[in-house]
Amino acid sequence: MSRPSLAEALFRPRAVALIGVSDDAGKTAGRPLRFLRKHGYAGPIYPINPNRSAVQGERAYANLGEVPGPVDHAYILVNTPAVEAAVAACAEAGVMVATILASGFAEAGPDGRERQRRIVEIARGKGLRLVGPNSLGVVDTGAPLALTANAAFAADALPRGRLTVLSQSGSLIGTLVSRGAVRGIGFGKLISVGNEADLSVGEIGVALADDPETDAFLLFLETIRQREAMTRFAALAHRAGKPIIAYKLGRSAVGQALAVSHTGAMVGSDAAVDAFLRHHGILRVDHLETLLEMAPLVVGRKPPARSHVRVGVIATTGGGAATVVDRLGVLGVEVAPPSDDTLAKLRAVNVPPQSGPIIDVTLTGARYEVMRPALDILMDAPEFALILATIGSSAQFQPELAVKPLVDCAREKKPLAVFLTPQADETLRLLASHGIAAFRTPEACADAIAAYLAWCEPVPLVNAEPRTLARATAVLQAAAGDVLDERQSLALFDAIGVPVTPSHVLHATAEPAALPFPFPVAAKVLSPDITHKTDAGGVALDIAGASELRERAHALVAAARNHHPTARIDGVLVQPMERGIAEVLLGYHLDAQAGPVITVGMGGTLAEIYQDYAVRVAPVSASEAAAMIEEVRGFAVLEGYRGKPPGDTAALAEAIAALSMLAALPEPAVLEAEINPLIVKPAGQGVVAVDGVVRSSRTSPSPPR
Amino acid sequence: MSRPSLAEALFRPRAVALIGVSDDAGKTAGRPLRFLRKHGYAGPIYPINPNRSAVQGERAYANLGEVPGPVDHAYILVNTPAVEAAVAACAEAGVMVATILASGFAEAGPDGRERQRRIVEIARGKGLRLVGPNSLGVVDTGAPLALTANAAFAADALPRGRLTVLSQSGSLIGTLVSRGAVRGIGFGKLISVGNEADLSVGEIGVALADDPETDAFLLFLETIRQREAMTRFAALAHRAGKPIIAYKLGRSAVGQALAVSHTGAMVGSDAAVDAFLRHHGILRVDHLETLLEMAPLVVGRKPPARSHVRVGVIATTGGGAATVVDRLGVLGVEVAPPSDDTLAKLRAVNVPPQSGPIIDVTLTGARYEVMRPALDILMDAPEFALILATIGSSAQFQPELAVKPLVDCAREKKPLAVFLTPQADETLRLLASHGIAAFRTPEACADAIAAYLAWCEPVPLVNAEPRTLARATAVLQAAAGDVLDERQSLALFDAIGVPVTPSHVLHATAEPAALPFPFPVAAKVLSPDITHKTDAGGVALDIAGASELRERAHALVAAARNHHPTARIDGVLVQPMERGIAEVLLGYHLDAQAGPVITVGMGGTLAEIYQDYAVRVAPVSASEAAAMIEEVRGFAVLEGYRGKPPGDTAALAEAIAALSMLAALPEPAVLEAEINPLIVKPAGQGVVAVDGVVRSSRTSPSPPR
Repeated sequence: MSRPSLAEALFRPRAVALIGVSDDAGKTAGRPLRFLRKHGYAGPIYPINPNRSAVQGERAYANLGEVPGPVDHAYILVNTPAVEAAVAACAEAGVMVATILASGFAEAGPDGRERQRRIVEIARGKGLRLVGPNSLGVVDTGAPLALTANAAFAADALPRGRLTVLSQSGSLIGTLVSRGAVRGIGFGKLISVGNEADLSVGEIGVALADDPETDAFLLFLETIRQREAMTRFAALAHRAGKPIIAYKLGRSAVGQALAVSHTGAMVGSDAAVDAFLRHHGILRVDHLETLLEMAPLVVGRKPPARSHVRVGVIATTGGGAATVVDRLGVLGVEVAPPSDDTLAKLRAVNVPPQSGPIIDVTLTGARYEVMRPALDILMDAPEFALILATIGSSAQFQPELAVKPLVDCAREKKPLAVFLTPQADETLRLLASHGIAAFRTPEACADAIAAYLAWCEPVPLVNAEPRTLARATAVLQAAAGDVLDERQSLALFDAIGVPVTPSHVLHATAEPAALPFPFPVAAKVLSPDITHKTDAGGVALDIAGASELRERAHALVAAARNHHPTARIDGVLVQPMERGIAEVLLGYHLDAQAGPVITVGMGGTLAEIYQDYAVRVAPVSASEAAAMIEEVRGFAVLEGYRGKPPGDTAALAEAIAALSMLAALPEPAVLEAEINPLIVKPAGQGVVAVDGVVRSSRTSPSPPR
Repeated sequence: MSRPSLAEALFRPRAVALIGVSDDAGKTAGRPLRFLRKHGYAGPIYPINPNRSAVQGERAYANLGEVPGPVDHAYILVNTPAVEAAVAACAEAGVMVATILASGFAEAGPDGRERQRRIVEIARGKGLRLVGPNSLGVVDTGAPLALTANAAFAADALPRGRLTVLSQSGSLIGTLVSRGAVRGIGFGKLISVGNEADLSVGEIGVALADDPETDAFLLFLETIRQREAMTRFAALAHRAGKPIIAYKLGRSAVGQALAVSHTGAMVGSDAAVDAFLRHHGILRVDHLETLLEMAPLVVGRKPPARSHVRVGVIATTGGGAATVVDRLGVLGVEVAPPSDDTLAKLRAVNVPPQSGPIIDVTLTGARYEVMRPALDILMDAPEFALILATIGSSAQFQPELAVKPLVDCAREKKPLAVFLTPQADETLRLLASHGIAAFRTPEACADAIAAYLAWCEPVPLVNAEPRTLARATAVLQAAAGDVLDERQSLALFDAIGVPVTPSHVLHATAEPAALPFPFPVAAKVLSPDITHKTDAGGVALDIAGASELRERAHALVAAARNHHPTARIDGVLVQPMERGIAEVLLGYHLDAQAGPVITVGMGGTLAEIYQDYAVRVAPVSASEAAAMIEEVRGFAVLEGYRGKPPGDTAALAEAIAALSMLAALPEPAVLEAEINPLIVKPAGQGVVAVDGVVRSSRTSPSPPR
């Protein structure tokens, strides 16, 4: 008998051991035995309990050594202090996967982190793989396997389906199963990954990417751990044509803090997470029920073309449709009236001309003979990427009128999203059974439509130019410490391909020589120890000539010494005064969750207050950088705003792409780089970096993961 | 027998006539007879149909003249062209209220508007009041009266309750009734107000403010019509202790456009609507289901103190609670951990110390003996304004563990919001029956909590100073046309109490005399025909002395003439160069829906791009103006941002309050006034208006409603 694969050991184990299972079937540690039996697991189940000869009426074994056959998957149900011994026993016994229920590990402070490190070490030594700790278990409705302590599995039936759930919250798998049951939405595999001490969402996803029983993946995420595995999972799932839909906490500061305390996750910026998910072709939903409801919009489909994003709307209730359309407007989705051609076709089937984007069939009568041909026409209409149908009261008592046409219409051509205004569970089940995405709330419906239209192909790898990388690496290696001063930073930006303003260093003791560029100039004190030069009185602008430069350079150094007596001062940096249309902030950093990201926005106080930045996983191409520029609202000033000339956005895009290549550098890597400001000149005249700072991993112990 | 009141005629008519009722009980025009009978209306029903002697098996009358008794309420079910005659017949017959089903009136272009005007004229002449047109009817579960064509009333039972619904969308009353039924949430009165040609939400609300069977009002709004009546309704409902909760479309441009096309409503800004609702103490919810779910949070309560806005969280599922808390964070609601005192009390009942804001009882075991005392402690904890409880899987199968404590705890002290993560309809009904606000989605739950915490007392009237108003009126009356030039505008601002910079007019032909203020100065061309002076080359800044002023004044006039050859040029306005911490935009206008509003934000391009403004119904007090200043994110620059001195926000608040007094002026009224910029100087040094424009109703035909 060959050794099972990871996916088989997880979801189709030949035998299961329940370590520390309780005799009380109502207790958390007693439920897995009850649920395995209730839902008909076919293989041997070995309850392990050294204190009892029987558990819940079944024979119990004192330890794993006593069980009569091999165990593929053990569920460790003992208390926190006993977990380590149980893991060691599983490792000794040749168990393939152990899932751990207990909490009190990485999420519980330094002691917990140490406990978690030890169990991983024990398991790794013997090839044992771990799920959890803090895992409510593993379910496969097809096996069937309900190896879980989640109380929701007390339900009599597990609706089967082809959606696989990977969740960092254990209780959420129960939420989805119980809410799905009443809707006729079933699941294939569900796994509560807990702390991901060993097996992560990414690695489990990789193991399931080719699962013939999975059509799509639903993720409930609190953080992103093991980024590389997540990246592989996304790529494999995409290749297999299986969309990944994610609901992720941490959109607010309090939510990010929760992720930390709850399962010991690391904090990063939500905008970076958003960029990471989009980069890898993962759809992100904003509402919890959208995670349950939206899969039919994407199963078997590819991301829509970016140019094809209009939504067509048909309704038997204008007010009901307006609740979705208004929200789509808030989300920036384009809801459009039909073309003249489509309107003519609709008129031919007795749907009267409409003003506005909602095709309201109420006037004609919400009947099959009207709805069916109208829907077929909309499904064929080239102007629409997706059709939204909103059905009113008839959905509850007369589904034959306006709901049956949804089932019968030519829907293979584009996604159909349905919002039912009344309580109509039976109709929701009917639509689910036909693979139609139906929504209970206008908000989840709009959320799903927006997520579908924002869905992108995974971004292809951007290749770096080896000579550029070599030049940049040389600059980094030449720098003394981990924080580069302004001159070194500008040298790095120059090496990586960002235009920088020329600069000339006056040494504090020497007389200024002739400058290699004309006046007027700017002068700044040069010191690795002074980061806020303006606050330290270390910046002088608009210097008109040599004598003024001499005077003000002395004054700068004196002010800086006064402000910061112990700072090393390497001289005064002189640059031409650069002017342009706008001052831009361009940043690169390693995000705790998302990894290397590039950020661009307007410079200055207000942009900082409004957090108006575009973020992408680095490196990016110049065309992706151009898309970033379009996202920043403040860059309206670069489009010839209020009579100003347009800015050189092409050069800005090139500069963004160039700086993003920092992600391709080998060690010593750049942890953080900021150009502030990058001056954008009128179109055709380029951009130029005039100030910036870089922090590298050169003397840091290790980069943040 | 005395004549019934409006509320009685609407909801408790002694007899009902159905004009044009169809024999087909399944057709829209046939349903009202079926639903009246089904739900047990006790009074006489007179079907009116000149073509049939019987309708749906009941005796039909050829016209209203034939019916044997008085009719308090008629439902006109005929087609659009026949409505006018039916209204005339009702008016003749002394019917008190006629509800009109047909569409094709104000929402359908000029012809429809004319049709609507005529029926109102006919009705007014005879004291007949109208509901609609475009009304799906009137329901009173207590009467019982189901005078409606909404298909949702085919349901067998109408759950009774003490919530009254006033809806501009007819189908929405069916949505609420059918969704409420499964939740155990019942309604008292429901009315579909349609186009509000005569009776508006406001007037119907006034008639029901003292209704002993109503605890709270739910409004579904597409627009605000008859603002004065709405204002009266809000005041009376507040006095009667009956909260008003509104869901209003129009948050997006496409949503606002829909409101227009759908029922002929007028468009206004959503921010102004928000301000209007808040001003009158009306709660606004963002999610449709919140309208159904949130009433128990507010019934019998007063708005919370503004300083008391923290939410305490208890949960049997950390992940489930995090979905609500994360969203509360996005909405800016403060979720706080318990105080040390509360933590000590919790420890005493065996709830272990918690890190972070969620009190997760999972570890202790989600049992009654833990939840009940913990909830009582939180209800007593003075740091929390509201408690959120999130219950996981046990809510579905074991409500005795964590749900029963919610029912039993000491909840009179503060509102309790409950989010159940599993599908648990029975538990939702249990909670509803005990008057506990329970939510199906984390998003609606967070929305309701945010709405509760934002709930304010209606703002008291701000009194204007009569002499100030008289001065301002004199300035307005002295102005020649409806658009005031800059000098006249500044004079008005001065008269109303806003500090303005001194100015001096140089007449184009004369030699400049000595200025009444020192150099440097700014100069602008003075013309009622040139609004964008900078674009016309009509502004010069930083003029150092008299000879420079002479030269540049000539150049300004020449440039303006060149740019705008037909413009009347009245001279050149000279002002001191004013400098400060920030340039602010201060505006006043008559909003189409909300009426007079005052707006404040940062001046300049970026603030315009980010739409970062605070809006209030005018006039406002200086303390309300101070609250506006705190809302504008860009005003962070006035708080001593990045080493700058703080700005004079007290003087800014006084200026906002002063300009808002324009709302108190008699005719000729100000339609629109903008100070741009108002310069804010360092604290203690005041503010000063340097430029602005005013449009009055002086020569305009009439102000927008």
